[in-house]
Amino acid sequence: MAEPTTIEQVTKQVEEVILGEDGKPLSKNALKKLQKEKEKEALKQKRAQEAAERAAKQAAESVDYAKEFYGKKPMNQSQERSGTKRERLTDINASRAGEKVWIRARVQTSRPTGNKMCFFQFRQHSSTIQGLVVMNDNSISKQMVKFAQGIPSESIVLVEGTIAVPSEPIRSCTVQDVELSITQLWVLSESQGRLPFNIEDASRPETEFEREDAQFSKVSLHTRLENRVFDLRTITNQAIFRVQAGVCKLFRDFLTSKGFLEIHSPKIIGAASEGGANVFKVKYFETDAFLAQSPQFYKQMVVCGDFERVFEIGSVFRAENSFTHRHMTEFIGLDMEMAIEEHYHEILDVFDELFVYIFKGLETEYAHELAIVHRQYPFEKFQYLPKTLRLEYKDAVALLRANGVEMGDYDDLSTEIERKLGQLVKEKYNTDFFMLDKFPLEVRPFYTMPDPANPKYSNSYDFFIRGEEVLSGAQRIHDPDYLIERAKAHGVDPESIKSYIDAFRMGAPPHGGGGIGMERVIMLYLNLGNIRRVSMFPRDPKRLEP
Amino acid sequence: MAEPTTIEQVTKQVEEVILGEDGKPLSKNALKKLQKEKEKEALKQKRAQEAAERAAKQAAESVDYAKEFYGKKPMNQSQERSGTKRERLTDINASRAGEKVWIRARVQTSRPTGNKMCFFQFRQHSSTIQGLVVMNDNSISKQMVKFAQGIPSESIVLVEGTIAVPSEPIRSCTVQDVELSITQLWVLSESQGRLPFNIEDASRPETEFEREDAQFSKVSLHTRLENRVFDLRTITNQAIFRVQAGVCKLFRDFLTSKGFLEIHSPKIIGAASEGGANVFKVKYFETDAFLAQSPQFYKQMVVCGDFERVFEIGSVFRAENSFTHRHMTEFIGLDMEMAIEEHYHEILDVFDELFVYIFKGLETEYAHELAIVHRQYPFEKFQYLPKTLRLEYKDAVALLRANGVEMGDYDDLSTEIERKLGQLVKEKYNTDFFMLDKFPLEVRPFYTMPDPANPKYSNSYDFFIRGEEVLSGAQRIHDPDYLIERAKAHGVDPESIKSYIDAFRMGAPPHGGGGIGMERVIMLYLNLGNIRRVSMFPRDPKRLEP
Repeated sequence: MAEPTTIEQVTKQVEEVILGEDGKPLSKNALKKLQKEKEKEALKQKRAQEAAERAAKQAAESVDYAKEFYGKKPMNQSQERSGTKRERLTDINASRAGEKVWIRARVQTSRPTGNKMCFFQFRQHSSTIQGLVVMNDNSISKQMVKFAQGIPSESIVLVEGTIAVPSEPIRSCTVQDVELSITQLWVLSESQGRLPFNIEDASRPETEFEREDAQFSKVSLHTRLENRVFDLRTITNQAIFRVQAGVCKLFRDFLTSKGFLEIHSPKIIGAASEGGANVFKVKYFETDAFLAQSPQFYKQMVVCGDFERVFEIGSVFRAENSFTHRHMTEFIGLDMEMAIEEHYHEILDVFDELFVYIFKGLETEYAHELAIVHRQYPFEKFQYLPKTLRLEYKDAVALLRANGVEMGDYDDLSTEIERKLGQLVKEKYNTDFFMLDKFPLEVRPFYTMPDPANPKYSNSYDFFIRGEEVLSGAQRIHDPDYLIERAKAHGVDPESIKSYIDAFRMGAPPHGGGGIGMERVIMLYLNLGNIRRVSMFPRDPKRLEP
Repeated sequence: MAEPTTIEQVTKQVEEVILGEDGKPLSKNALKKLQKEKEKEALKQKRAQEAAERAAKQAAESVDYAKEFYGKKPMNQSQERSGTKRERLTDINASRAGEKVWIRARVQTSRPTGNKMCFFQFRQHSSTIQGLVVMNDNSISKQMVKFAQGIPSESIVLVEGTIAVPSEPIRSCTVQDVELSITQLWVLSESQGRLPFNIEDASRPETEFEREDAQFSKVSLHTRLENRVFDLRTITNQAIFRVQAGVCKLFRDFLTSKGFLEIHSPKIIGAASEGGANVFKVKYFETDAFLAQSPQFYKQMVVCGDFERVFEIGSVFRAENSFTHRHMTEFIGLDMEMAIEEHYHEILDVFDELFVYIFKGLETEYAHELAIVHRQYPFEKFQYLPKTLRLEYKDAVALLRANGVEMGDYDDLSTEIERKLGQLVKEKYNTDFFMLDKFPLEVRPFYTMPDPANPKYSNSYDFFIRGEEVLSGAQRIHDPDYLIERAKAHGVDPESIKSYIDAFRMGAPPHGGGGIGMERVIMLYLNLGNIRRVSMFPRDPKRLEP
């Protein structure tokens, strides 16, 4: 090796001989110590590097690669319209497996599985489908799964998913052959606070609550009505109100096909009709008015106005301070009135065909809804005859007496006796529906036409479903002088109903009709036990809200 | 001849010699006198006989050989049911000539011709037919003709007659090719007293009253409404209320086909909705309640109850102390409400299709009725576009300003300006029906969703027919916190509408809808000039009867 020639070379040589702080070369011991310190430093650096690497790795993980695919949407103010199709659950099935679809639905339940998965039951009306979010490494992030797991029940979500066929049918949902493998999940409207009750409990069959091991609580009718908007979401209520619309539709379609015209009569009236009891008073500018207890007078007047055959579906109001299972202060009347040619049994013939048409229509067009209601509120199959039984009042009295009921020939029927009669008729004729004709005149309104053969009876009738009255009707008096006579006999001042009586002065056809309590028909047909279950927002003396 | 042998024979001979009072035979003079007396007696007898014969003949004539064929029937109490078919006038035509038929009809007019004949115009709804009674000598007696001539107009009769083809068509009746040759004529219900007006005058085209030689008087709307039952019998009113039922049917059929469900919301409500102005108060047992001014809150709540798409046809009540041609205190609302997927224009799309469906349905299914109404109340053919014009509020303001109307960007439209806008739109786009979108937020109810692009505007709209508003609607606020904020801004206490606001807390879909004033649509479509003409028994601050 050549001698160092430059100053740098000399310096390097010097440095290789490790010098101490005093400038002299270190001792062996000092060298050893130094070596240890060096090693320590290296270790420290290595650890720092590892920590940095770990931090970098964590940072990489926290990048949410799914953030375009989930979240809360801002309040919809119609910001845009993409026209993307959104499916109804009822249109989704295995034949469409593999297809990617959008749905708007409610979260009925969600079930987190670890931190990588979440199962959902989504609901639309009375349909439910299973959806699942499963974490993966490119489109479903851990953050997205966490978000999914946090969505409160009953929130409304917008979901994109692929229709997938599960290995086993999903028994807990109505859509059983497929589920949705979720690819996007957006909350449109989040449910706030605690739900008033569990919506699944509220849809449970009555019988389940009787099981000894029942782990859930029954939702009282009161709680339901206090939270009616929420309660309406149960599959049973979804079905009940479809049946309700169905009954109205069948009533209307049948009568329209028979030449009846739909009318609308006033609900605010100048004088309390039918004697003035149980009528709500309205402050009407400088005077008082009343709420119509039925369209009775007006539908008759319209018949006198030559419309011949009319019907109305409308609100009627009764200020009855009662809290029974079958009374409300406001309900829907299905009313009809018609001119007759010869005999009021022409009216019974129309009603007979009408009810059979409604019963048949329910069985065929609403079988799905009936099955859903039946699941929660079991009922005996509804029996009716192709031609409805018409029983005369006197024969009903005889039947009751033969079975131990004590009553006079012309006594009215109590609720209890009506029930008894319903049972006896069911046993004898195997029908849940019948007509009771020729009521005692005494127990009917003043405008009822007396029976020509026996003036103690009248040309009037009630119809019964499962032993409870659902319709009341009669041939009406169309002669104005006789009407005045009968009004007076009932203590009704003819002056107070002048415009009604005057309607008969310029020629009035013989006529009659009847009024059906819409909610009662459905309550009894479905065996729901309380009329409030058939009214979206029932009214009784204590309930004005919601 | 042999000599008399018995005492009788002798007596006879004696008698033949006429003896005087003195027992002696009479003198010649006396015999002559006697002869005269005998002749006088014979003449007397002859005269008596003639008188008796005349009397007998008269008696024979007064036997009423038709008495089984006419008369007043006792009040119908359903005494019997023969099942005899009674025809509708619309089913009677020349193909049935010679057939004997029964009809029940009103006597619209009768015209006696001498004492042997009487012409009738019989009426059923808006059909009329001619009938005639002609005396003959075996079945139609003089008495029967006299009876026929005395039947008051508007009485209801039961007629048997033979369908006959007249030599010329009967232009005064709707059934023109045949008349009824009456064989039986029975009064079922006689019209009493003087008729309030002439029913033919009440059906006359408006233009006829303008003729200089008009011999009849115009029936005022007031007189009509005071005698509404009678007034309803005019062929025009028969047609108007068929159109009314038609509009309701078309509304319902279309929405049902689009998955909407018919609902019934309560009319008695616990709190005055929408601020409390113009609301009727009801005495409700120990408390006060109110009549619903619209089903607004309830239909929204039902959407939150998962019914998604609903409609209601029902009474609404407005305590507005106004007497305009287009206000009533009670009318029928055609309401709908629906969840939206992305944009409130989805609602406009449904309404667009709905209105076009109604207009088309009227033109095709109700052409006959429209023609009858048109005859009395002429109107310009109703123009509409296959896809309805949607005009933005700001563009309407620009159009108005360009035509001399001074108004601010966010001012509401007065009735007068609405009319002007209707004219301008008609001129520019040739349509009597259009949608005005994006109203200023300020002039709309608190629950209206603001426009996301400009909060001075809103996602709300009115529809117009012939320059008058028939529908008002909007996207609604579905976020409960924002709803509270907006209610406060409008001075509405959120506590007073708690159950409404709570309905949005457990997840609410974006939604909107609208309410149609049923009577207004028909008044404007038919150009009737006053909304009372479209209500069977209209209500305004001064009218509660009939």
